[in-house]
Amino acid sequence: MPSGKRGRFPVGTPVLDAARSLGVYVESVCGGRATCGRCQIEVQEGNFAKHKIVSSNDHISPKGAKEERYERVRGLPEHRRLSCSAMILGDLVIDVPQDTVINAQTIRKAASDRVIERNAAVQMCYVEVDEPDMHKPLGDLDRLKAMLEKDWGWKDLLVAPHFIPEVQSILRKGNWGVTAAIHRDMDSSRPFIIGLYPGLKNEAYGIACDIGSTTIAMHLVSLLSGRVVASSGTSNPQIRFGEDLMSRVSYVMMNPDGREAMTKAVRQAVNDLIGKVCAEGGVDRHDIFDCVFVANPIMHHLFLGIDPTELGQAPFALAVSGALQFWASDIEIEVSRGARLYTLPCIAGHVGADAAGATLSEGPYRQDRMMLLVDVGTNAEIVLGNRSRVVAASSPTGPAFEGAEISSGQRAAPGAIERVRIDPQTLEPKYRIIGVDKWSDEDGFEEASRTTGVTGICGSAIIEVVAEMYLSGIISEDGVIDGALAATSPRIVENGRTFSYLLREGQAGEPRITVTQNDIRAIQLAKAALYAGVKLLMEKQGVEAVDTIRFAGAFGSFIDPKYAMVLGLIPDCDLAEVKAVGNAAGTGALMALLNRDHRREIEKEVGRIEKIETALEPNFQQLFIDAMALPNKVDPFPKLAEQVKLPARKAVTDTGGDAVPRRRSRDERAARRARS
Amino acid sequence: MPSGKRGRFPVGTPVLDAARSLGVYVESVCGGRATCGRCQIEVQEGNFAKHKIVSSNDHISPKGAKEERYERVRGLPEHRRLSCSAMILGDLVIDVPQDTVINAQTIRKAASDRVIERNAAVQMCYVEVDEPDMHKPLGDLDRLKAMLEKDWGWKDLLVAPHFIPEVQSILRKGNWGVTAAIHRDMDSSRPFIIGLYPGLKNEAYGIACDIGSTTIAMHLVSLLSGRVVASSGTSNPQIRFGEDLMSRVSYVMMNPDGREAMTKAVRQAVNDLIGKVCAEGGVDRHDIFDCVFVANPIMHHLFLGIDPTELGQAPFALAVSGALQFWASDIEIEVSRGARLYTLPCIAGHVGADAAGATLSEGPYRQDRMMLLVDVGTNAEIVLGNRSRVVAASSPTGPAFEGAEISSGQRAAPGAIERVRIDPQTLEPKYRIIGVDKWSDEDGFEEASRTTGVTGICGSAIIEVVAEMYLSGIISEDGVIDGALAATSPRIVENGRTFSYLLREGQAGEPRITVTQNDIRAIQLAKAALYAGVKLLMEKQGVEAVDTIRFAGAFGSFIDPKYAMVLGLIPDCDLAEVKAVGNAAGTGALMALLNRDHRREIEKEVGRIEKIETALEPNFQQLFIDAMALPNKVDPFPKLAEQVKLPARKAVTDTGGDAVPRRRSRDERAARRARS
Repeated sequence: MPSGKRGRFPVGTPVLDAARSLGVYVESVCGGRATCGRCQIEVQEGNFAKHKIVSSNDHISPKGAKEERYERVRGLPEHRRLSCSAMILGDLVIDVPQDTVINAQTIRKAASDRVIERNAAVQMCYVEVDEPDMHKPLGDLDRLKAMLEKDWGWKDLLVAPHFIPEVQSILRKGNWGVTAAIHRDMDSSRPFIIGLYPGLKNEAYGIACDIGSTTIAMHLVSLLSGRVVASSGTSNPQIRFGEDLMSRVSYVMMNPDGREAMTKAVRQAVNDLIGKVCAEGGVDRHDIFDCVFVANPIMHHLFLGIDPTELGQAPFALAVSGALQFWASDIEIEVSRGARLYTLPCIAGHVGADAAGATLSEGPYRQDRMMLLVDVGTNAEIVLGNRSRVVAASSPTGPAFEGAEISSGQRAAPGAIERVRIDPQTLEPKYRIIGVDKWSDEDGFEEASRTTGVTGICGSAIIEVVAEMYLSGIISEDGVIDGALAATSPRIVENGRTFSYLLREGQAGEPRITVTQNDIRAIQLAKAALYAGVKLLMEKQGVEAVDTIRFAGAFGSFIDPKYAMVLGLIPDCDLAEVKAVGNAAGTGALMALLNRDHRREIEKEVGRIEKIETALEPNFQQLFIDAMALPNKVDPFPKLAEQVKLPARKAVTDTGGDAVPRRRSRDERAARRARS
Repeated sequence: MPSGKRGRFPVGTPVLDAARSLGVYVESVCGGRATCGRCQIEVQEGNFAKHKIVSSNDHISPKGAKEERYERVRGLPEHRRLSCSAMILGDLVIDVPQDTVINAQTIRKAASDRVIERNAAVQMCYVEVDEPDMHKPLGDLDRLKAMLEKDWGWKDLLVAPHFIPEVQSILRKGNWGVTAAIHRDMDSSRPFIIGLYPGLKNEAYGIACDIGSTTIAMHLVSLLSGRVVASSGTSNPQIRFGEDLMSRVSYVMMNPDGREAMTKAVRQAVNDLIGKVCAEGGVDRHDIFDCVFVANPIMHHLFLGIDPTELGQAPFALAVSGALQFWASDIEIEVSRGARLYTLPCIAGHVGADAAGATLSEGPYRQDRMMLLVDVGTNAEIVLGNRSRVVAASSPTGPAFEGAEISSGQRAAPGAIERVRIDPQTLEPKYRIIGVDKWSDEDGFEEASRTTGVTGICGSAIIEVVAEMYLSGIISEDGVIDGALAATSPRIVENGRTFSYLLREGQAGEPRITVTQNDIRAIQLAKAALYAGVKLLMEKQGVEAVDTIRFAGAFGSFIDPKYAMVLGLIPDCDLAEVKAVGNAAGTGALMALLNRDHRREIEKEVGRIEKIETALEPNFQQLFIDAMALPNKVDPFPKLAEQVKLPARKAVTDTGGDAVPRRRSRDERAARRARS
């Protein structure tokens, strides 16, 4: 258990051997010497009617000398046995624990309950090597290889050249007992010895890293237990070369050393972050043997030292799209000298290895329902599909969702407004800020917010405030603030030729926080780009609705799905089926780190995914224009309407008149801008 | 022709395709575009009764536009055709030329007429890559790989990481036409793209190098034509750390940075030598894509950066014995950034990759006769065997054969005596020196030798002078100079308690050149060690005689087999079957460079060779003592006696007496010394 596999074995068979012959993965480093303690199992006692057997600790051999020594020296939890030493004497139900530090088969994601089955690319193998013999003058390394074949079945091992000069001293230091770190990724590739250690080396780590334009996030994981030892993040230092991706590409184009400087900066940041997670986890960075990276295409290229200029212009040609694997030292990542590095494949010029990671994590292709997966950043990456077909695209949402281009916008930080409600009767707002639990209309809010002040509106709250303005009738479905309301509400204030909504008057020294007509236009443009991209993929799939929606990325974690749908960022869907999945790209990297089968899985899937280039689709412009309206000019939102009272929709008319053509042409300009 | 393979093909089949389907190797870089000119063939015209066909140039398609363009631009020898363009129209006998620069299938060894069939690890493949397409957003590298699979059949290509950042600019510079350098060694390993060049790159080179203790020798070879472009040598700069191998091991043991200094020195010398052969051949060192090295075990270890201390003491443990393959840059060899480096396997702690190279070159295991292969240096490496069994050992001959430990000995250089004859009647010598054609008793010798003088005796002449002294009765079969002869010959001179033979009185300022009793003892010790080793292997094989003898190395090239046999360096054998084969180790390296099948061949053979450690064999001492006599105390030399009048042999007695035990015990000390 829990695999449920069963078999019959001769009395005296070690449980570990029985597990292996059933194809049940139980870790072991020492090769059955009862010294590493990785192979723990537990006997379930009782009458198992389902299996028609009685399982009892009487049916397993008592602890022998070796196992008792292990228990004495290293300690063994109650009921736990070492499966390499415990032998089958009768009927048994055996539990392979899934949750312990020493022998966890699985890791638990922060954001979900999903478990990752382990099949890491790195395995630690202890062997006792024959001493040199003049009659059989095989070299030290060659006898090591022979023993790794004999004890562990490794054939045709290749050797990382860096440690060849050290083999003889390591063998002698370990008194001929050594642990080899073996790396094998693809089954068609020959395995590599990537490290060698005197005696028993009972630990090996890996990192999974997502290089975002703004943030670099990393997990440090034990490859032997699957446990996430530390997770951390840092700012991408490339920000000093340009806030967004396109400005970084421009920097490369305009500065001869720009590419090199940015490559150096991001590799340095990754190395610093490795130092940080290692310090947090109490791990030596030289015990990291495997690294998996995901990134958007431009970060991916810069990290690998590739000029990203081609990605800044049609046809958005990737220098390399497939998965890559080489020595970490090839690109100056400072971990074990023999560590390998794997990058997930990129899906297209605008849909990177990060989207591949998120796709691996959420697995639309693993299920029958139509899943929409969106990762909103400066570009929104959109994947839509199910078991039979997956399509992907990116859409240029711009930075509005991140609070940029918004008059009172700011990044998420203490003092930023993160929640907003507007009373539809009085049009009065209430809001919450980051760092304070109380709503602004509750007693004590002003006092609690005094240290930070109320400084602006963060990305998630912009969605809410615009959606609430729409629900309360302040703005029309076309996104125009109704100036007539200025007569009845002091919250509607004139602002040149348009109107604004006053969210907060600003105390002494604090800014006055308003939502302007321009702010609403910026959000409309962004959400229209996203929705048009989604709609395009739905058309490719021939579906009118999606079954389930996954919001990846930080933005998705903070927005309320209801408001996202009211605004028409995402198509109509049962609200319970809209889920934030956090850094799904990083989770995908983690999966690829812990199980090399997931690498093959996503490599294969990326080859199958159909890539749609929105700029080349003739109806993108019309979809974009329709999506400028709230929630949409043409699409109904029946499931949303069941849960939220939406304003009555204007009849779709084509009356002409002065105002409409002017707005239309403005929308068209915006659509062109979004496509450029 | 010349393979003799034949087949039937549809009219219109290109000759290149026909050759390939028959398994006949015809080079091609451009992939049938008639631009590289590598695939030349020739039609043999006439009535071929043996094949029952009439072959005629009328049966091959006339030159098309592409082939004519190649002929116009690059030139095509008369009767030559490009097999990619020439199509079969009727019966043809096709000759694949073996000897041209542009299309040599083979290379000719300097020392023999043997040809090496080519199957290099590196292949150059021109492809035209699809331009980027937004609808199919595969990366540049990925489309390159796809085209290499489509046009050339390469599957699962790995990529040398160093050029990934350059792929996009190379493709664009070549206007999407590029040549990939592909390296595949073992069939079980995945092939690697190791370099990429815009347009057609129609050349690729390799080096084969033998790192000897004294000399480093190198061939520079075109991997596409098989032509040896340049061959050269240089002194091993490690000589400054110690003349012989053991003094270099001592240097490592006594100096903390000794190993590193010697590794650096030899790698620098190799890099300098690469510069030299490249200058000679007019080749850019960055066009070298493959390197094969052989060396004795201590040089092998030092070159790879491995501490050789273990090789200086029992059990003479090699750190690595198997063949290795990695990037040339891993050990700082300055060639193409993507070049691979292969080292042949070592046979045992004293029998290195150089002996493996010589074994590959001479191939005792490829034939039925019993072949003795000896490479004489400070250690003699000895290989004995045939198709069914091969045994190998080394024997500590010491430096006497190289002129060291000899009172008038010197290295081979102008002025050194290289040939000696002694008149058995008068005991007067005549000799020749390096740099002068005349013998010393010919008119004009003194004048001709004036510039260099006569400065000493080189290694090959020491063999001759001792053998001639024996043949002329000056020394007994025990190697003792007969003092009684001093009465009748002024050439026999007293020298303390022993006598010497005066070879040359020395003109003004020149040294007096004599052969002392000690010199003869040194030669006896060296030749006894060699012969005892050979005898031990003969005993292992259960043979009384060998069928053929190969002398590898510089020493073997200069000595006269007759004198070597008279002295009893080598066992009795038909003198016509004793051949010098020059630097057979280097030839073996060349074979492994030009044909990767030879790598598998020698890897497999080295695994089969039985290694004999002379120091562990109980009867080595007796064999050594027997071999102190000239030619041997117990072994008859019947075949030698047919061609050379040997002095009458003393009856083998065991009389005791004063002299014998004393000499015996001295010989035993010598035997112990030789084994230590």
